[in-house]
Amino acid sequence: MGESEAEACLLDAARRLGRLLAEAGWVVLTGGRPTGVMEAACAGAKSVPGSLTIGILPAGPEGPVSEYVDVAVFTGLGEARNVVNVLSSDVVVACGVQGPGTASEVALSLKAGRPTVLLAPTPRAAAFFSGMAAKGPLQAVETPEAVVSLVEGQLGIPRWRAV
Amino acid sequence: MGESEAEACLLDAARRLGRLLAEAGWVVLTGGRPTGVMEAACAGAKSVPGSLTIGILPAGPEGPVSEYVDVAVFTGLGEARNVVNVLSSDVVVACGVQGPGTASEVALSLKAGRPTVLLAPTPRAAAFFSGMAAKGPLQAVETPEAVVSLVEGQLGIPRWRAV
Amino acid sequence: MGESEAEACLLDAARRLGRLLAEAGWVVLTGGRPTGVMEAACAGAKSVPGSLTIGILPAGPEGPVSEYVDVAVFTGLGEARNVVNVLSSDVVVACGVQGPGTASEVALSLKAGRPTVLLAPTPRAAAFFSGMAAKGPLQAVETPEAVVSLVEGQLGIPRWRAV
Amino acid sequence: MGESEAEACLLDAARRLGRLLAEAGWVVLTGGRPTGVMEAACAGAKSVPGSLTIGILPAGPEGPVSEYVDVAVFTGLGEARNVVNVLSSDVVVACGVQGPGTASEVALSLKAGRPTVLLAPTPRAAAFFSGMAAKGPLQAVETPEAVVSLVEGQLGIPRWRAV
Repeated sequence: MGESEAEACLLDAARRLGRLLAEAGWVVLTGGRPTGVMEAACAGAKSVPGSLTIGILPAGPEGPVSEYVDVAVFTGLGEARNVVNVLSSDVVVACGVQGPGTASEVALSLKAGRPTVLLAPTPRAAAFFSGMAAKGPLQAVETPEAVVSLVEGQLGIPRWRAV
Repeated sequence: MGESEAEACLLDAARRLGRLLAEAGWVVLTGGRPTGVMEAACAGAKSVPGSLTIGILPAGPEGPVSEYVDVAVFTGLGEARNVVNVLSSDVVVACGVQGPGTASEVALSLKAGRPTVLLAPTPRAAAFFSGMAAKGPLQAVETPEAVVSLVEGQLGIPRWRAV
Repeated sequence: MGESEAEACLLDAARRLGRLLAEAGWVVLTGGRPTGVMEAACAGAKSVPGSLTIGILPAGPEGPVSEYVDVAVFTGLGEARNVVNVLSSDVVVACGVQGPGTASEVALSLKAGRPTVLLAPTPRAAAFFSGMAAKGPLQAVETPEAVVSLVEGQLGIPRWRAV
Repeated sequence: MGESEAEACLLDAARRLGRLLAEAGWVVLTGGRPTGVMEAACAGAKSVPGSLTIGILPAGPEGPVSEYVDVAVFTGLGEARNVVNVLSSDVVVACGVQGPGTASEVALSLKAGRPTVLLAPTPRAAAFFSGMAAKGPLQAVETPEAVVSLVEGQLGIPRWRAV
């Protein structure tokens, strides 16, 4: 998860994370729009042969979709689709947490008790969310490689394909 | 789309349809629960190597999922997820149309202007829906093979994999 | 519930029904848009002093609302708001059932086990829905007055105000 | 908006805010459950004759509702109903912002560009949200009276009844 407008270093991190997750055999699920962190993560994943990317879109089938999304799920629900993103993810990784859309996803993820990882959060975001009583585990890391280590440590997260 | 409790002939049709669609290289998307037409269609698809099945679930990740679903999208939206099913399908096929859940999906599909196919509808269902002013095309057929012919005739429906 | 474009006789029935329900002290809940059966029912209700009308809108707060809606609930959910309409109604009355939007609401109401009344349905709609196994009671009547008699017969439906 | 489990001082503030808003003639809308800030705000409002309270519930009609809610809107959407709360409010007031549910509502409100007020936020919450680029105005205040002053300053917010 991440902003539709993000700085270059966050886009780089998202792209690398998408590639690493796909290389390790996991499905990459994003908000599916052709912009920002969503597109960067999917593009990174699709650089890996045999990868699978899912996009959960806020609009209906008339809306724009990233070309790096294999399966587009059109919800027509607007921002309420953020709940679907979070519930459908085995681990929710927020790349940045600078804008309200991503912040809502982190909060909804903690509310739903999903394992949540903040990748390169601002100090304020880390302080705010880590001080919150949440049902699921929350961790903050600095690199995509550290995200993958965490995800590998979480038991039972199904892989899409053998690697 | 179809009922969670269905007669044997409808389950057979759903299984055959799932297999035929997967053989032709399309993704099979259902409501994802481990029962009825949903499970039969996914099971048929998964009998084909390289197939891909998506389940759009009414519950959150604690709810039951068919073992034949590759990617489970947990919405937590209850029956409102029927809208997501319909908007995310290039063609909506209703297998049976005997209960209110499937009827709502056919109606929502017609409302959204999606191409809609009634497979083996009752005469009452066919009469009711075919008499309705709808934005999208509606057709009624008797066999899974006829569904596939229709879907192949619809231009621009993306295949998941070459066949 | 009813179509956004409806014949004069259905609009008359909706207006009369809205007035009768408001006179009897019930809240009138519709889809809230400034058109068709929704607006007619709210306008009828608002001809009664002390009445209360609720509109459950498909769009966000930028979308159009009937001037006869007291409380606008903006969902931003598109057609998925039909589920909210149905779940929030003590009795669901479909005025007409000629288009797919209203048909989806009747089907979702039957699926959710809500008491459902078809007002002046076409013979095909009555045949289709009355033949369906549903959790909640379904009845078809010809006049708004008959709807009110049915609603009064249903126990435990709370009134908004004493009459 | 606020937590279902909150400290006594926040419950007091919510009760006072509900009463003040109702006295000034505004509708009070909450998440509708019989607990915490939601119930306190509704209870405060219902201490005022002629007040109107709306509850937007996560569950369907079988779920619990506060006795201080006049109109219960049952969504069946789980946490996705937070989006409905926010879009339907002329001003979103978060009483506390200590848990993930309320944090998601503040974030969704900022994302949707709704006027948003943080009542008695923690320093971390105030720092996090005030540093965020948002479409709508955000302000932090310490008392319910200050919220009402802000709301009165916002032009065009319709009153439910003359005072």
